[in-house]
Amino acid sequence: MSKKTDEIAVFEGEDTLILDCGVKLEKFQIAYKTYGKLNRSKSNVVLICHALTGDQYVSETNPVTRKPGWWHHVVGPNKPIDTKKFFVICPNVLGGCMGTTGPKEIDYRTSKPYGLSFPVLTISDTVRAQEKLLNYLGIKDILCVTGGSMGGMQVLEWASKYPDRVFAAIPIAASASHSSQNIAFNEVARQAIMADPEWRSGNYIEENTRPTKGLAVARMTAHITYLSDKGLHNKFGRMLQDKEKIDFGFDADFQVESYLRHQGYTFVDRFDANSYLYLTRAMDYFDLAKDYDGNLSKAFSNSKTRFFVISFSSDWLYPTSESRKIVKALNIAGANVSFTEIKSDKGHDTFLLHEPEYINVLHGYLNSIAIENKIDNDN
Amino acid sequence: MSKKTDEIAVFEGEDTLILDCGVKLEKFQIAYKTYGKLNRSKSNVVLICHALTGDQYVSETNPVTRKPGWWHHVVGPNKPIDTKKFFVICPNVLGGCMGTTGPKEIDYRTSKPYGLSFPVLTISDTVRAQEKLLNYLGIKDILCVTGGSMGGMQVLEWASKYPDRVFAAIPIAASASHSSQNIAFNEVARQAIMADPEWRSGNYIEENTRPTKGLAVARMTAHITYLSDKGLHNKFGRMLQDKEKIDFGFDADFQVESYLRHQGYTFVDRFDANSYLYLTRAMDYFDLAKDYDGNLSKAFSNSKTRFFVISFSSDWLYPTSESRKIVKALNIAGANVSFTEIKSDKGHDTFLLHEPEYINVLHGYLNSIAIENKIDNDN
Repeated sequence: MSKKTDEIAVFEGEDTLILDCGVKLEKFQIAYKTYGKLNRSKSNVVLICHALTGDQYVSETNPVTRKPGWWHHVVGPNKPIDTKKFFVICPNVLGGCMGTTGPKEIDYRTSKPYGLSFPVLTISDTVRAQEKLLNYLGIKDILCVTGGSMGGMQVLEWASKYPDRVFAAIPIAASASHSSQNIAFNEVARQAIMADPEWRSGNYIEENTRPTKGLAVARMTAHITYLSDKGLHNKFGRMLQDKEKIDFGFDADFQVESYLRHQGYTFVDRFDANSYLYLTRAMDYFDLAKDYDGNLSKAFSNSKTRFFVISFSSDWLYPTSESRKIVKALNIAGANVSFTEIKSDKGHDTFLLHEPEYINVLHGYLNSIAIENKIDNDN
Repeated sequence: MSKKTDEIAVFEGEDTLILDCGVKLEKFQIAYKTYGKLNRSKSNVVLICHALTGDQYVSETNPVTRKPGWWHHVVGPNKPIDTKKFFVICPNVLGGCMGTTGPKEIDYRTSKPYGLSFPVLTISDTVRAQEKLLNYLGIKDILCVTGGSMGGMQVLEWASKYPDRVFAAIPIAASASHSSQNIAFNEVARQAIMADPEWRSGNYIEENTRPTKGLAVARMTAHITYLSDKGLHNKFGRMLQDKEKIDFGFDADFQVESYLRHQGYTFVDRFDANSYLYLTRAMDYFDLAKDYDGNLSKAFSNSKTRFFVISFSSDWLYPTSESRKIVKALNIAGANVSFTEIKSDKGHDTFLLHEPEYINVLHGYLNSIAIENKIDNDN
């Protein structure tokens, strides 16, 4: 194991990873970002797990999009995850496309991009890779692990597999397994990518093409599921895009069409199509109860971790009912669990937004953890 | 105007159609099917308007799919729309691909398929074309006009534009205008088709290709919206397709994936990609209130038509709230309206299914109309 730069950890030798599919990942690296300062007792670690299309740039300008980090209003000085108190770590997930080993990176054995020869991953693989990162950073205990959507799945996995290392876990807008509808939407996205002839059976990097149209369609479909019917209505309704009347054509007449096209075609500049396949597959495969004889509460047996489960009222992708299943399992396990459903009409995407009630409960909960663990600026 | 065969009506000369886009459709034909017998007083006509991917083969084996007609359990002897009592007419919609003039038909001016040179249509255009068909058949009065989804839009259009000719109207699982989310899903479907290089800017017939992959993705996306989350869960859950364990690959591991792929790839054998563009566009453009200063109730001013509005509890594509808007407008207009929400977990697709409560209310309502109008076998 050697340290390449401040923000990329390389694992090899004894630090290889046996993946759930059976493949031994012999060399891999994790790109990550940290914010704040690790205190002397190493007791102020907040691990942030990003969602499907997120990355490690939580709180600073993203080097690819040049936009503020995806959780910049949550992470920073005096913000809910206060970097004056906490040492924040956010790794790019395994299979991602922002520096961590994934299908777009070079396979050291062939000197070519992995493409579809990359092994199919699970959320559990991702979390075990993160565990190696924490060991590498000399960190044993996690004060709080949090994240939304696919990030929330990692939170649940962390809490169930490493209960002794996690003081608090905040899964946001997540579920303990994908529903049939979740899988269906992901499958459509994958089919859209694979239908694009420029995908070249996954070898597009080597063949110097890009399946941009397929990936854009995948993103557009997914984007609808991130918003609520009411949210779309409030934002766009049936308003036309820079015109008085419909055009009787197939250009974007309605604002919502223009918006979706924009979402699709900006996405392809920052995301790798094969990563999209691998990460959606990992989400579909996630089924925490299955690892415990189909009994989700067993995933949390004797857990001392404090849980705070958050859902959003208009989220129909990971609806509140999925969060309630988690809460119920935690209650059966006798775990310490709080739960809140935030009222919002902005759908699943709310976990990324500055929704005051949501920001407030996060802030309060993180504060209480800091006080209980005597975390302050002087630590 | 000349009659080509029993089931295709050709319109030309004075019977041209001025479309809402301004184009004069100088020659067009409508393919249609009839069931039952027109009575002497021509008072037993039931007009059935089909949905986006439906056709005129309501009650008999479909010549393309070799499957029973899409409403075979509703239309037939002793069935809710009893062909021993009623004379049923079902035309293929304008822009469709089962014999009525649409983008896949030959433009008589160029002797080539229309493709994207076909004018963009509205639901109003479709209904005015159907009105010409009824005139051609010598029929003035419609005892009942009914249909689900896009068919329901035509029902509303018929009732608002020709109130004196419609005794009863039954819009099923419909809305008076597409929501932002409806438009968004249709836009994704169109983008999927147009992203397929085999679409060839709409000229695929001439160039002897077919955008099958794009059309399949479009259909898969739409299909998810036709089913409910709970319905998918009950039918498929997370069950695997002919295997004990996940495959760690991108083939169809889950039954729902296999099902969706099947839906996508069988659809392309029976439907024209350009028709899909034109019909989804017509649905997106439909906005009945807009024709009446934004006041939906004015669409039904002084209407003597009896309305029966039907919605399904788990339909999230055309939710009950949309039907309630129609009912409210009808109430404001002082119209005769009944409304029922059928409990079902099968989503929007319920309008095509043998859901007993739904079949029963249809049967009862049609019976009452027949009795009120003294329609019986002897007529």
